[in-house]
Amino acid sequence: MADRISFRPIGIIHSPFTNPAGMPIQPTGAEGVPGRVVIDPACRDGLKDLDGFSHIHLLYAFHLADGFTLHVKPFLDNRLRGVFSTRAPRRPNAIGLSVVRLVRIEENILHIEDVDVIDGTPLLDIKPYVPAFDVRPAERTGWLATRAEGAADVRSDRRFAAPDEREPH
Amino acid sequence: MADRISFRPIGIIHSPFTNPAGMPIQPTGAEGVPGRVVIDPACRDGLKDLDGFSHIHLLYAFHLADGFTLHVKPFLDNRLRGVFSTRAPRRPNAIGLSVVRLVRIEENILHIEDVDVIDGTPLLDIKPYVPAFDVRPAERTGWLATRAEGAADVRSDRRFAAPDEREPH
Repeated sequence: MADRISFRPIGIIHSPFTNPAGMPIQPTGAEGVPGRVVIDPACRDGLKDLDGFSHIHLLYAFHLADGFTLHVKPFLDNRLRGVFSTRAPRRPNAIGLSVVRLVRIEENILHIEDVDVIDGTPLLDIKPYVPAFDVRPAERTGWLATRAEGAADVRSDRRFAAPDEREPH
Repeated sequence: MADRISFRPIGIIHSPFTNPAGMPIQPTGAEGVPGRVVIDPACRDGLKDLDGFSHIHLLYAFHLADGFTLHVKPFLDNRLRGVFSTRAPRRPNAIGLSVVRLVRIEENILHIEDVDVIDGTPLLDIKPYVPAFDVRPAERTGWLATRAEGAADVRSDRRFAAPDEREPH
């Protein structure tokens, strides 16, 4: 297997969620929740033309995830599932993916909505959301088939947080 | 800005594309193209339940991308665009994102289709593709609005390859 690959965050995502407990678990449960992404000024020129897009992918590090297990009990189920069949944060490479609404850009700050990310999350990449590339006719959505709609109502708890976040001091 | 974050690939993506030149630039241009993902046996248990999904996200490293520039001339345009408004490989954190069809899983091997990835690409993560989470009503797709459909026909060239790939020896 290949060697480690390292990335330097290009910004920080800010949201109203300062604690994993009570957070939405998907953008569908975070409709209208405002947030900001503060981009490293050194990367600001890369934002050119991004304001033409109503939605963007954010790729980020689940920086509070503490290690991983290959079987997890996801928020939307009470059975153990293979981690790659879930969007759980505690995964071998703790990378998160969310599609959010881009409201506007002011200098190096993106104002966004539908934010399901904890405050202070390190941003790794931004990609335009383009239905022609990103939308597929998914016939089967596995164990999530009858559960995905519930994501709008379910809230996170402390199960995926780092140990020192799980037990309040 | 936060420190570097490092990831260890969980597998390798295999495809018919051994050279960036001539590759599809998006899965929409790679319909039916078969590929395989060989998962690190140590991660195999994490594949449980994944076979229920017809489509999956692959997050991978653009391992041939050589550095980056903040303005790029994308395959689908002849103007310089901010790199974050493109899906170009040469980006500050060279992470790729594709939705592919999952045909079947045999032990630690995923058989996939619609592969727009070069052979030997290091895989970072797999997530289930779930329309309820991943599909948004994107009203605006910026400079790609009139160009995204063309992605099915456009092929890659060497512009994003590492220097030793650009000039044949």
